[in-house]
Amino acid sequence: MEGGVDYLAPERNKAEFDVDSMKIVWAGSSHDLQLSERMARLVASDPAFRKDNRAMLGRNELFKSTLRKATYAWKRINELRLNEEEALRLRSFVDEPAFTDLHWGMFVPAIKGQGTDEQQKKWLPLAHKMQIIGCYAQTELGHGSNVQGLETTATFDSKTDEFVIHSPTLTSSKWWPGGLGKVSTHAVVYARLIIDGQDHGVNGFIVQLRSLDDHLPLPGITIGDIGAKFGNGAYNTMDNGVLRFDNVRIPRDQMLMRISQVTREGKLVQSSVPRQLVYGTMVYVRQAIVADASVALSRAVCIATRYSAVRRQFGSHNGGPETQVIDYKTQQARLFPLLASAYAFRFVGEWLKWLYTDVMQRLQAGDFSTLPEAHACTAGLKSLTTSVTADGIEECRKLCGGHGYLCSSGLPELFAVYVPSCTYEGDNVVLQLQVARHLIKTISQLGSGKKPIGTTAYLGRLEQLNEYRSDVQKAEDWLKPNVVLGTFEARAARKIVTVAQNLSKFSNPEDGFQELSADLVEAAVAHCQLIVVSKFIEKLQKDIPGKGVKQQLQHLSSIYALFLLHKNLGDFLSTGSITPKQGHLANEQLRSLYSQVRPNAISLVDAFNHTDHYLGSVLGRYDGNVYPKLYEEAWKDPLNDSVVPDGYQEYIRPLLKQQLRNARL
Amino acid sequence: MEGGVDYLAPERNKAEFDVDSMKIVWAGSSHDLQLSERMARLVASDPAFRKDNRAMLGRNELFKSTLRKATYAWKRINELRLNEEEALRLRSFVDEPAFTDLHWGMFVPAIKGQGTDEQQKKWLPLAHKMQIIGCYAQTELGHGSNVQGLETTATFDSKTDEFVIHSPTLTSSKWWPGGLGKVSTHAVVYARLIIDGQDHGVNGFIVQLRSLDDHLPLPGITIGDIGAKFGNGAYNTMDNGVLRFDNVRIPRDQMLMRISQVTREGKLVQSSVPRQLVYGTMVYVRQAIVADASVALSRAVCIATRYSAVRRQFGSHNGGPETQVIDYKTQQARLFPLLASAYAFRFVGEWLKWLYTDVMQRLQAGDFSTLPEAHACTAGLKSLTTSVTADGIEECRKLCGGHGYLCSSGLPELFAVYVPSCTYEGDNVVLQLQVARHLIKTISQLGSGKKPIGTTAYLGRLEQLNEYRSDVQKAEDWLKPNVVLGTFEARAARKIVTVAQNLSKFSNPEDGFQELSADLVEAAVAHCQLIVVSKFIEKLQKDIPGKGVKQQLQHLSSIYALFLLHKNLGDFLSTGSITPKQGHLANEQLRSLYSQVRPNAISLVDAFNHTDHYLGSVLGRYDGNVYPKLYEEAWKDPLNDSVVPDGYQEYIRPLLKQQLRNARL
Repeated sequence: MEGGVDYLAPERNKAEFDVDSMKIVWAGSSHDLQLSERMARLVASDPAFRKDNRAMLGRNELFKSTLRKATYAWKRINELRLNEEEALRLRSFVDEPAFTDLHWGMFVPAIKGQGTDEQQKKWLPLAHKMQIIGCYAQTELGHGSNVQGLETTATFDSKTDEFVIHSPTLTSSKWWPGGLGKVSTHAVVYARLIIDGQDHGVNGFIVQLRSLDDHLPLPGITIGDIGAKFGNGAYNTMDNGVLRFDNVRIPRDQMLMRISQVTREGKLVQSSVPRQLVYGTMVYVRQAIVADASVALSRAVCIATRYSAVRRQFGSHNGGPETQVIDYKTQQARLFPLLASAYAFRFVGEWLKWLYTDVMQRLQAGDFSTLPEAHACTAGLKSLTTSVTADGIEECRKLCGGHGYLCSSGLPELFAVYVPSCTYEGDNVVLQLQVARHLIKTISQLGSGKKPIGTTAYLGRLEQLNEYRSDVQKAEDWLKPNVVLGTFEARAARKIVTVAQNLSKFSNPEDGFQELSADLVEAAVAHCQLIVVSKFIEKLQKDIPGKGVKQQLQHLSSIYALFLLHKNLGDFLSTGSITPKQGHLANEQLRSLYSQVRPNAISLVDAFNHTDHYLGSVLGRYDGNVYPKLYEEAWKDPLNDSVVPDGYQEYIRPLLKQQLRNARL
Repeated sequence: MEGGVDYLAPERNKAEFDVDSMKIVWAGSSHDLQLSERMARLVASDPAFRKDNRAMLGRNELFKSTLRKATYAWKRINELRLNEEEALRLRSFVDEPAFTDLHWGMFVPAIKGQGTDEQQKKWLPLAHKMQIIGCYAQTELGHGSNVQGLETTATFDSKTDEFVIHSPTLTSSKWWPGGLGKVSTHAVVYARLIIDGQDHGVNGFIVQLRSLDDHLPLPGITIGDIGAKFGNGAYNTMDNGVLRFDNVRIPRDQMLMRISQVTREGKLVQSSVPRQLVYGTMVYVRQAIVADASVALSRAVCIATRYSAVRRQFGSHNGGPETQVIDYKTQQARLFPLLASAYAFRFVGEWLKWLYTDVMQRLQAGDFSTLPEAHACTAGLKSLTTSVTADGIEECRKLCGGHGYLCSSGLPELFAVYVPSCTYEGDNVVLQLQVARHLIKTISQLGSGKKPIGTTAYLGRLEQLNEYRSDVQKAEDWLKPNVVLGTFEARAARKIVTVAQNLSKFSNPEDGFQELSADLVEAAVAHCQLIVVSKFIEKLQKDIPGKGVKQQLQHLSSIYALFLLHKNLGDFLSTGSITPKQGHLANEQLRSLYSQVRPNAISLVDAFNHTDHYLGSVLGRYDGNVYPKLYEEAWKDPLNDSVVPDGYQEYIRPLLKQQLRNARL
């Protein structure tokens, strides 16, 4: 990959499987692997995309540098005539939040999903050529999760055939939209539709924000950046913005009217397009977030795994080398479950992609029956995978010891840029409550004979699961997929049933739902963990080519499940699905799996196929040449531009020379 | 506290206890409360100590601004003739890592603890007047936890009566010491003492690094800053440094010789001062870290609690106000255990302070018997409290939703500046392994009749604990201190015994210790949680004045214990100390405790007595006036200095005007 000595070659030689085949499995297909490789190399080899100085720039410099990279990327996309898939991949490898993410990821899809054919015909060509730049203005200072509580108004004025967009309160200020603060010329703005004083709820409107001549905000519009965010670079490359409207007028045809239309006379008319299509979009966005989670986690795990093989501490015998920290069981017990999680999330993401296609085909055929289950399932998996990934990145940072705290490790940046995923597109706790609601509803309908489908199908076997007792007798029994599956199904089912029973004691179900919400979240998480476990197992039932590849994945699948079992032992024991002795056996098996993964660890992270540019980490370098490069990186800090620091004459020298009066201590 | 309307007054009026009395309990005494208030106000009212622009500065500006504040603080300390206690407190309220932390916190104590009387007489007056500035140069690029593996050498040259300090390898470069990179004139350097080719292990040496005339590094010395670290401000205010020696000579009398001396002839002589005193210093440093943990956690909890009372989302009836998010059980179940932990850590820290005094008195009287237990106990509590606090701060940030991601929330900064505590002064996992070693040793000596002391005393009742079965029959039974204590003792004891039994199956104990290290860590954590639980309970057995104060603390004590029980249910169930039914009852009791804490929540965080300056958070403002101030803060970002951003002409305009060629997509 890079020239020079490969210090990790001895590790790579230990691998018991074919890394190139595993790369294809991780990427999804040979096509995907080649595509990614091509785009990753394009970015990595172009000095214009350097990012190693990111942590040292002030806000204005940082923002300008991102503008430069984002527009340069667009130039390259055009020059190389990249298709949409390639362009998306290239932008992701640039690895820097920018206005283009929102333009392509939210503005264009909103118009596609919610605009009429006419509206699409008018706006999409402009957006596709980037003659306008758009963002997605939904959240407000006072409202995030509760979209139905948004305060911005869009009042129909039948005299002029316009909508008047207005921010009636301070808390109605749009707040957070990426690309809004400094760049976007247009926005899809969500506002309460008001006709003749009647509130018809929230709808989307295309609003021009800035002049296309001089980029100044149009009359009645106040826009700014909302200020510094977590991390050195991270989302500070993005102009998340604030936006206020003082009675701004837009033509009637800029309301997105695919679902509901306002006529010239001010009548609200529902179109024949089913509302459920909107949920289809949600499924799409969230399955993409799950796919991103596996990538983000894989980056952190790759860095921590490689550095754990480089770093040595303690255990020297007779002056020989110290022990590689990856050989410590405490390190393995924290690192390998995250390695397994990265693979697990990859496969469940792959399956979600299939689920989205399936749901959309059904929607288009007028079959809405699978939507609620698919919606709950993607919401829950978005929540589960982003939470684990955010915590996992920070855990990987800690696994790198002190040096993980340096920006040159790449991990602080990765954490700070990733962690908003736990909040955006649905707060993770709010989402699990939605899942719980779906599960409770599913249970409650069993009596009326409604058969649960998809990921909830196991709830159709409640009686059987209620009597489930694991028959594990020795540690290796835990390697059997059916044993694991049965145990996880029993645990999830019983948690759901228990909380449903407790709910039924409340005379007002909503009171019960509120009082027991923490338990409901736990039940939903147990259900989501079961989904991930079962999709990993399903993946392994298929043919997977490549020497030793399936074997490695079997280890990882077992680690993923048994680690969860160990961590949530209380659930499994209190629902009676396993005995304490069986819990101990699972832990024993887990330790032995760690030993089996150990020699393959470096190759298992090599299979992610991350370039050194994309990792952006001195600790995670492919060649393991960590220390000289750490040393080299240090000198690049602006503080090292002069030997004697700015401030010496003013502050340090007077101190040392006792020119500060009244010294007494 | 601040002028204007108090939007949280309705919350404050709900309190069922006397807040002023609780403030004294939290502070430790009226004296401490007054001292803190005086120093906090001094800092908060002086515009020179403003810190709200910290996240927006580039590295050089940020560093210079810290130099300014640190030297100004020193000036004020002298002008106001503050004593040592006051000066320490004032520096802590300035709330910005600076070279002075290391000078006063490590350099001066190292000379006091390891220097002879003569050395102290020579160096301390210079240090006390800050005519020299010192740092503590221990860790190296290649060695952190393994201090005995340090590579820097100090070779005695009997011809010149000097030590030659040398960095033989790249990995021997000193790396991380705070204050080293740009400021310190001197350092206590840890190096291997070599006499006549014989290695006598690591010792401390006072080494001058920079000229006192022009601040340039002395010949043979290379120094620099190690580069950007996690977070916007955080530790980037500090010049953590790299240091290399090329055969630098220092006089023999600059080796710190309180314990071991090198004579003129090059003979190594042990003094009569017991080595154990060094461990006394470790106990001191770590108990201070535990005290800091409670403060850091209390800041995050204060911000999240106040904002949770301000923030409303969902649940509006007939256009009325929405529900305060603090009323959601999911919010309470995440927030209140952290509130309880802050109080728990405060009290265990208070007790550790007593323990340190006790150990030192014994050491001076030649009684080393309690040292191992005290050492293990402080190591374990340092590990436990810093891990929970770091995770807790991030959890509080998530509890503030999207706005918690803004630097103006104060939480990103608090997290990034706090999280190194998990690594410095002993990596948290390495420390728990030390605790585990002590516990296993304690158990193994039971047979020979050695009675366990202090926090391990309960291990003297192994047989009884082994048969312990909780007699809880209804939820309220879990409020009884003895019930909680018995359960936690039984759980810890059985975890230790189980792992000890498993260890005994290995023929080589070290192999077993390595193989079972993850289990050992779990057992150590269980032991440490028991310590915190028991010290909270002990605190409540004392007289605590003030209306309702003890009642509130009882709630918090129960929440702390029952939350841990719920979270680690697997431990309690698999050791058989409780039944699943009893586990459910604990959870039920927990919910009811949350309801009891709810009306007191704001006042319980008011009792921390943090100024708005110290909190540094728009979300955590005392008056709850969050939204207008968030809006106001936004405009201060440098990106808002111009309406049209720098980069428009260069990048955005050409894009919009299609001056990028070959547009195709």
